[in-house]
Amino acid sequence: MKDGSAYLNDNAQRIVQDIIRDAERLRVSVSKGPLGECLIDAGAKAQGSVEAGLRMAEAAMGGLGVIATNLDQGSDSWPLHVEVRSSQPVLACLASQYAGWNLSNGDYFAMGSGPVRALARVEPLFSTLSYRETANASVIILETAKPPPEAVVEKVAKATSLAPEKLTFIYAPTQSIAGAVQIVSRVLEVALHKANDLKFPLDNIVDGIATAPIPAPHPDFLTAMGRTNDAIIYGGVAQLFVRGTAKDAQALAEKLPSSASRDHGRPFADIFKHFKGDFYAIDPLLFSPAQVLVTAIETGDTFRTGGRDLGMLEKSLG
Amino acid sequence: MKDGSAYLNDNAQRIVQDIIRDAERLRVSVSKGPLGECLIDAGAKAQGSVEAGLRMAEAAMGGLGVIATNLDQGSDSWPLHVEVRSSQPVLACLASQYAGWNLSNGDYFAMGSGPVRALARVEPLFSTLSYRETANASVIILETAKPPPEAVVEKVAKATSLAPEKLTFIYAPTQSIAGAVQIVSRVLEVALHKANDLKFPLDNIVDGIATAPIPAPHPDFLTAMGRTNDAIIYGGVAQLFVRGTAKDAQALAEKLPSSASRDHGRPFADIFKHFKGDFYAIDPLLFSPAQVLVTAIETGDTFRTGGRDLGMLEKSLG
Amino acid sequence: MKDGSAYLNDNAQRIVQDIIRDAERLRVSVSKGPLGECLIDAGAKAQGSVEAGLRMAEAAMGGLGVIATNLDQGSDSWPLHVEVRSSQPVLACLASQYAGWNLSNGDYFAMGSGPVRALARVEPLFSTLSYRETANASVIILETAKPPPEAVVEKVAKATSLAPEKLTFIYAPTQSIAGAVQIVSRVLEVALHKANDLKFPLDNIVDGIATAPIPAPHPDFLTAMGRTNDAIIYGGVAQLFVRGTAKDAQALAEKLPSSASRDHGRPFADIFKHFKGDFYAIDPLLFSPAQVLVTAIETGDTFRTGGRDLGMLEKSLG
Repeated sequence: MKDGSAYLNDNAQRIVQDIIRDAERLRVSVSKGPLGECLIDAGAKAQGSVEAGLRMAEAAMGGLGVIATNLDQGSDSWPLHVEVRSSQPVLACLASQYAGWNLSNGDYFAMGSGPVRALARVEPLFSTLSYRETANASVIILETAKPPPEAVVEKVAKATSLAPEKLTFIYAPTQSIAGAVQIVSRVLEVALHKANDLKFPLDNIVDGIATAPIPAPHPDFLTAMGRTNDAIIYGGVAQLFVRGTAKDAQALAEKLPSSASRDHGRPFADIFKHFKGDFYAIDPLLFSPAQVLVTAIETGDTFRTGGRDLGMLEKSLG
Repeated sequence: MKDGSAYLNDNAQRIVQDIIRDAERLRVSVSKGPLGECLIDAGAKAQGSVEAGLRMAEAAMGGLGVIATNLDQGSDSWPLHVEVRSSQPVLACLASQYAGWNLSNGDYFAMGSGPVRALARVEPLFSTLSYRETANASVIILETAKPPPEAVVEKVAKATSLAPEKLTFIYAPTQSIAGAVQIVSRVLEVALHKANDLKFPLDNIVDGIATAPIPAPHPDFLTAMGRTNDAIIYGGVAQLFVRGTAKDAQALAEKLPSSASRDHGRPFADIFKHFKGDFYAIDPLLFSPAQVLVTAIETGDTFRTGGRDLGMLEKSLG
Repeated sequence: MKDGSAYLNDNAQRIVQDIIRDAERLRVSVSKGPLGECLIDAGAKAQGSVEAGLRMAEAAMGGLGVIATNLDQGSDSWPLHVEVRSSQPVLACLASQYAGWNLSNGDYFAMGSGPVRALARVEPLFSTLSYRETANASVIILETAKPPPEAVVEKVAKATSLAPEKLTFIYAPTQSIAGAVQIVSRVLEVALHKANDLKFPLDNIVDGIATAPIPAPHPDFLTAMGRTNDAIIYGGVAQLFVRGTAKDAQALAEKLPSSASRDHGRPFADIFKHFKGDFYAIDPLLFSPAQVLVTAIETGDTFRTGGRDLGMLEKSLG
């Protein structure tokens, strides 16, 4: 993945072409926006689907993730899980999937996710990510019920030097099936993002795999957001393969699970209300999987921390 | 999937082309019947395989299902499972996979499954399914040890207005590996079919996923049939995502698991013998997964009913 | 798979082309050796990855295996597993994957795996395998940190009547991530190989599926080798579908699990040390999965033997 290989965006473009071809199957609707941008509604007016959510997650990871469902046999209340794997977790999760580009405009709130971020490179995160690429077209994933207003399309076009008709926006609200699936598919990404917050050198994270239960979507935004977060925070499991010393791997493992956060222990919706809806007042270290394995590949040690909280899942996931 | 998009049959045709290309790998034999029809023996004189059974199931679902195996780590006596998922469960399962077209003729007994049913549309079920399509070729899946006699080929040709050489019949008996796999892969379909029997509006079922153990095939037809049914009835787990009220979802969940049937509680082969082999005397509501989750996506509620019966699986699956 | 169909090698060649195309994604390095042979380093100087290991295993099985990862939700210390399935297990595992061709030369030690073995057919094992094919190109998988010396390339070229530039060597040491993944992916192959040692007729093994935990790679060769072996010997589960009598299936099941070996019960590294590093002094019957199911498809019986030893996994896998 050399500079200029246009890898993440090319992959996402192929995934978008498949989504458009399979629109009826996926229950998504495809249209052209006022500036010529391609709009894919995967859960707002369109019904969307589990499969649409999986494809959104694949596009969000720039094609560098392998995403599948798994239905546990057995006694769990939430047998349906998503499993996410990437042998390029930094690029897939941080350079692409992380919803880190603020595309809000007036009363339109949206955080941009997807490989477009590696073209725009406007976030502080890219100061620690050397990766860059050029591309002829790009894809933006939005957790929202509304297509982007013209000002947002223009902002993205300008930041990427691409014409609006070269941009595809895929959007689904938190309350939709596809939204729930694509958000919970961030279970690996949150581990990567927190590792970066903890100043763990990203180049040392070489492989990762994670799983989390898929909660029922809920019509209330706050409840829906609570569920998708709790699915990860109290139900997620992640294993990272890292280079470097055992000591560094252990230090990462100790801080990585959600239980290491001061805000751990209550349903996410309660925490959100406690902070009066100020997302950024919440401890950012809360956003990580419940259970963590960090494997130090150069020493052969694996450190296991945290644990799933089935009682909290029962309370939150419905 | 608009009328006339020829979707299910086109998909199945592609799957058939792959089966023919991979015939040796799948241990199936391909030949031309007396009227020019394509015959694929996946378990009668041919050995067949697990993989052939999975491909049959994919063709039966008109390409709208995702089907995989899973081998549980752990203590279960039946670790090998099939997992079936579809974001178009009504089309995949009811318009296509359900073995609902009676193609018996004289002493030849066969119930037709597959996308051919959406072309022929001769079953009462299609009065509640508005879906129709046209196609240049079609695929029929049969749970039988014998290729269809000429009269059956002609019947299908006539009902679909297709020449016999445009028809592919894939068949495997209940006693074969491929047969067992493709029959147990109906674990989602039986949930859909029972929901329809219970008058739940099909348009409100928008997504589904299910799993069941794959039993050992058995040379005795009755035992083999008992095992495949018990795998679903006592070992199947299904989750449906439905629109509508929580009350309707709950009512569906309460009636959906096999335990809600009067005939639940004995191995299927015993029930079959009890009714002297009269399949249609058995409570049709018995045919459903053991454990059910119904998620009402518009209210955020999930209702869980039934449960797997491991003791019965031990007794039946061998 | 008739003689001359060039199936295993053609499949592997396609997998190699994909590996070369995705080299950066997989963290492998591709180069040309002194005789024009293609060299793919998947874990020696190159970092490699989980995904590279899975692709190596697919190439090793001549494309006749389906290989996936699974991350268990729950309490296991080793949630990450590989699952391997083949409906042509004899060809995939014995004619191709088994690391049975001694390609050592001077102080270079390597056992060749992959479809090249079905071209060369120099091992005694091929006296019981009638399968043969011709091919224009071939693939050799090596569990080693060093590319093959010229003498080894020439030996392979001569044995296959292929020019060196038609040969691709994929190599990764036991201590690498890709190495660990591809070695543990032999969990089905060891069952097949032991069945052959036990004189079970190979033609009667028609399907197979197996799983094992993926251990952390370890920088010390002996420890790394111990872990990959223990993952299979104490953590592997396999189900074989066989033709023939129930009695023969039962006899196979009784001898097939690793617990039937005299050397079972200690970590592999200890056993290896006990025999002073003489691999061939170890009971060959030790190399098999911990837990076994043998299903006699012609009688409907399944025989279950052995069991996973979680305590030993804790001790060995780190």
